[in-house]
Amino acid sequence: MATIKPRLLLALMETQATGGRRARLCAALREAVRSGQAVLGERLPSSRHLAQDLGLSRVTVEAAYAQLETEGYLRRQVGQGSFVAIDMNTTAPRKTDGPLRLAGAVGARPGLSARGQRMVETGGCHEPERPRAFVAGSPDLQAFPTGLWRQLLQRRLRQDAASLMFYGDPQGLPALREAIARYLGLSRGVRCHAGQVLVLTSSQQALQLLSATLLDDGDAVWMEDPGYAGARTAFSASGARLVDMPLDDEGATLDAARPAPRMIYLTPSHQFPTGRAMSLARRLAFIAHARATGAWLIEDDYDSEFLYDHQPTPALQGLDDLGQVVYIGTFSKSLFPSVRLAYMVLPEALIGPLVTARTIYDGHPSQPMQAVAADFMDQGHFAAHLRLMRQLYRSRRDALLQALHSHVPWATPMDSRGGLQMAVRLPEGSEQACTRQAAGLGVATPSLSELYHTAPAVAGWRLGFAALTPDAIDAAARALGRISAHGQYRG
Amino acid sequence: MATIKPRLLLALMETQATGGRRARLCAALREAVRSGQAVLGERLPSSRHLAQDLGLSRVTVEAAYAQLETEGYLRRQVGQGSFVAIDMNTTAPRKTDGPLRLAGAVGARPGLSARGQRMVETGGCHEPERPRAFVAGSPDLQAFPTGLWRQLLQRRLRQDAASLMFYGDPQGLPALREAIARYLGLSRGVRCHAGQVLVLTSSQQALQLLSATLLDDGDAVWMEDPGYAGARTAFSASGARLVDMPLDDEGATLDAARPAPRMIYLTPSHQFPTGRAMSLARRLAFIAHARATGAWLIEDDYDSEFLYDHQPTPALQGLDDLGQVVYIGTFSKSLFPSVRLAYMVLPEALIGPLVTARTIYDGHPSQPMQAVAADFMDQGHFAAHLRLMRQLYRSRRDALLQALHSHVPWATPMDSRGGLQMAVRLPEGSEQACTRQAAGLGVATPSLSELYHTAPAVAGWRLGFAALTPDAIDAAARALGRISAHGQYRG
Repeated sequence: MATIKPRLLLALMETQATGGRRARLCAALREAVRSGQAVLGERLPSSRHLAQDLGLSRVTVEAAYAQLETEGYLRRQVGQGSFVAIDMNTTAPRKTDGPLRLAGAVGARPGLSARGQRMVETGGCHEPERPRAFVAGSPDLQAFPTGLWRQLLQRRLRQDAASLMFYGDPQGLPALREAIARYLGLSRGVRCHAGQVLVLTSSQQALQLLSATLLDDGDAVWMEDPGYAGARTAFSASGARLVDMPLDDEGATLDAARPAPRMIYLTPSHQFPTGRAMSLARRLAFIAHARATGAWLIEDDYDSEFLYDHQPTPALQGLDDLGQVVYIGTFSKSLFPSVRLAYMVLPEALIGPLVTARTIYDGHPSQPMQAVAADFMDQGHFAAHLRLMRQLYRSRRDALLQALHSHVPWATPMDSRGGLQMAVRLPEGSEQACTRQAAGLGVATPSLSELYHTAPAVAGWRLGFAALTPDAIDAAARALGRISAHGQYRG
Repeated sequence: MATIKPRLLLALMETQATGGRRARLCAALREAVRSGQAVLGERLPSSRHLAQDLGLSRVTVEAAYAQLETEGYLRRQVGQGSFVAIDMNTTAPRKTDGPLRLAGAVGARPGLSARGQRMVETGGCHEPERPRAFVAGSPDLQAFPTGLWRQLLQRRLRQDAASLMFYGDPQGLPALREAIARYLGLSRGVRCHAGQVLVLTSSQQALQLLSATLLDDGDAVWMEDPGYAGARTAFSASGARLVDMPLDDEGATLDAARPAPRMIYLTPSHQFPTGRAMSLARRLAFIAHARATGAWLIEDDYDSEFLYDHQPTPALQGLDDLGQVVYIGTFSKSLFPSVRLAYMVLPEALIGPLVTARTIYDGHPSQPMQAVAADFMDQGHFAAHLRLMRQLYRSRRDALLQALHSHVPWATPMDSRGGLQMAVRLPEGSEQACTRQAAGLGVATPSLSELYHTAPAVAGWRLGFAALTPDAIDAAARALGRISAHGQYRG
């Protein structure tokens, strides 16, 4: 049988962009075999010969041959030389660069599971783009005390490096869980202890974990309509049947004739996207209905830190005595998105199961970020930051109200008492045309109507304002003012 | 109807540990209604009267009443006073502290879904305890260059704060994906570009995402036996049927008579827990079988950074031309556990679906940690750190071999060429007794036999050594030397 040509190995070495000489020679030898350019039984050049031809030291070639022997590509026989030891069974023509085709049947290509397919079909979740007028959902990161955060992080990494770098409690750092429980009790009327808090990377992870542990295929989940897309995606990706609840002035409507719910998802403090708070009577009615039907109530309190004209209504969780409410909160907006910290407050019966599920999902949250968040809260910086942000965002909310009033009178604010975005109603049938015109003027105007499902869609926008200066808000509103109420450009 | 007694409100205020006066009065008023101690229609004391009785300013009382009116607990009628506005329908005796019972039927208590129950029954995943002899699985965090890491982090947080604090690419920071692709190409023979890399928080998250997207209930997953518990947990939690593959000298055995696999899970570079490398012939056979049957091959390359006596065998992924291999790697051991960074290298067909699934699961990985990891790799610190750790761990591996030889001759090392732990075989039937004795001597000896399922269990231990000094290793081995081969304490 022939001997492998040194120039083949040289050519293959040259295709290896990186690595030392020995590594590149090893890679070339593997590639020669893998691609079928060197076949079972074929002899390799002697190390002396190859070293000469390739301008390498003989030690390098010997080392590469030894390595390839260890890996099973070659066998070396004393006095006889080195030979290709593996039958790649290639059907590719020899001495070409054609791709390897192992002999034997090639069956159906593997694909996604039915479950995976369903997940992909939801389209996934989409996080906000970088702030510009009027992208929705971003806090103002310029206003975050990054210097202070860095200092706290440095201090923690100096003091507790070994402990914070190690694996952590899958339920979350106890100090942070304590701080969260205190904060929620004081500011949100949540009745809980630190043992009920589960720290997660995002409220999306909370929704996903709840889907995985509380829902089976076909279970009915009652959803606000319009409502939060991330929740819809998580629940429908997991095979639940979504049952829409249209809204009235008191919040999501309760209709006992709907299919019995396994879960009811609510944003009672500040309905997403309309901004309304759910009435106390309606809250009590939902709790009573959840009791009667044995449903879980999920309270997503995603941005009640940012209410400007009144104290936020205490959490629905505080009204529940039978342990059927799961409360979700996040630091993505109250600190910053990449802190990757959110939390659930769990009824006692769910603590063990959800912590177990979390260990299967992704182990535990980042320890250093948790430690710094706990310090930030314990030292009063969190409360101070929220106070400041409420003032800042309130003035921007006011600027947006004023600018809309002056320049875009055909856009009618719905409830503007809080949040980082404002839902505005447009003249019926005009959303698409107005959005197209706005895009032409360089202004993003996230759709309101797309968040409606069974309920008749309201033409409108969700205008993000929290990360914009009053000037930027005014300029963008002026630009929108060049569009007519029906989406004509007026110049 | 009666007027609510100020002393009830005072008592309830005193149960509020925290908050200002107004907040505590608000909480007391809510609690009076919630608990049924104040019922629909009942009159509140006048604000003047209550202010006097409670020693508060009238402004405070007025503000609390206004807040409670906003929330729907009270209504205020000019000239008439303030009244409880909500019917809690309580069945609890009035004027007691008994818990609230909303009227109406209480149905079945909600529970976990069947899926959630299955997840809980796996028992979840367990991360290593803090290092001590011979807890398995922890790298040595003392040896990590924490000062350097802190500097890199500070620099990044100073330079790119706004960008790194914002939402990130759900696939992972491009700079880190580039660095991972380069590293894997050079060091592991993985053939990929940065677009195939998906950055995750842990290899556990990789396993869970693969379960969710590639497996349906009842799908057969071929597993090494003995094998990695975290993978078994993820796959069985998702409803897959596990099919055990006993090992022989070449690695996991391939038996075409087994139920056709939807997925084959392998640790070919360094089998967990035995430490063997899979032969090239066996690798090719698995690839051919995956092609013939349309199965996914999952290559978990969990610790091939730490092989001490030879270069690691290149990844199986590099032999695959049809895109059926998913490669998993982690920084938990090569950097530190709490960095919360791991990655998959995906075949082209899976990139879109897996990134979509990830957005539904938890959005995106932490940006600052990714940026620092990229810097650490790009500036050569990663390669240097791995070199140093290999030397350090090799000397500890040698110390363990020596100490076992001297003090515990009845514990026979299996394959000790790499890793952070060493599997040792014990005399048949002695594991339980020896482990009990070892625990009595304060030495942890993680079980080997518990990782066997269908295959006959081998009595043994997995002795963690990487985070222990040679002295600690020797002392613990001496302690074990006081046990006889059959688990008797010899004193």
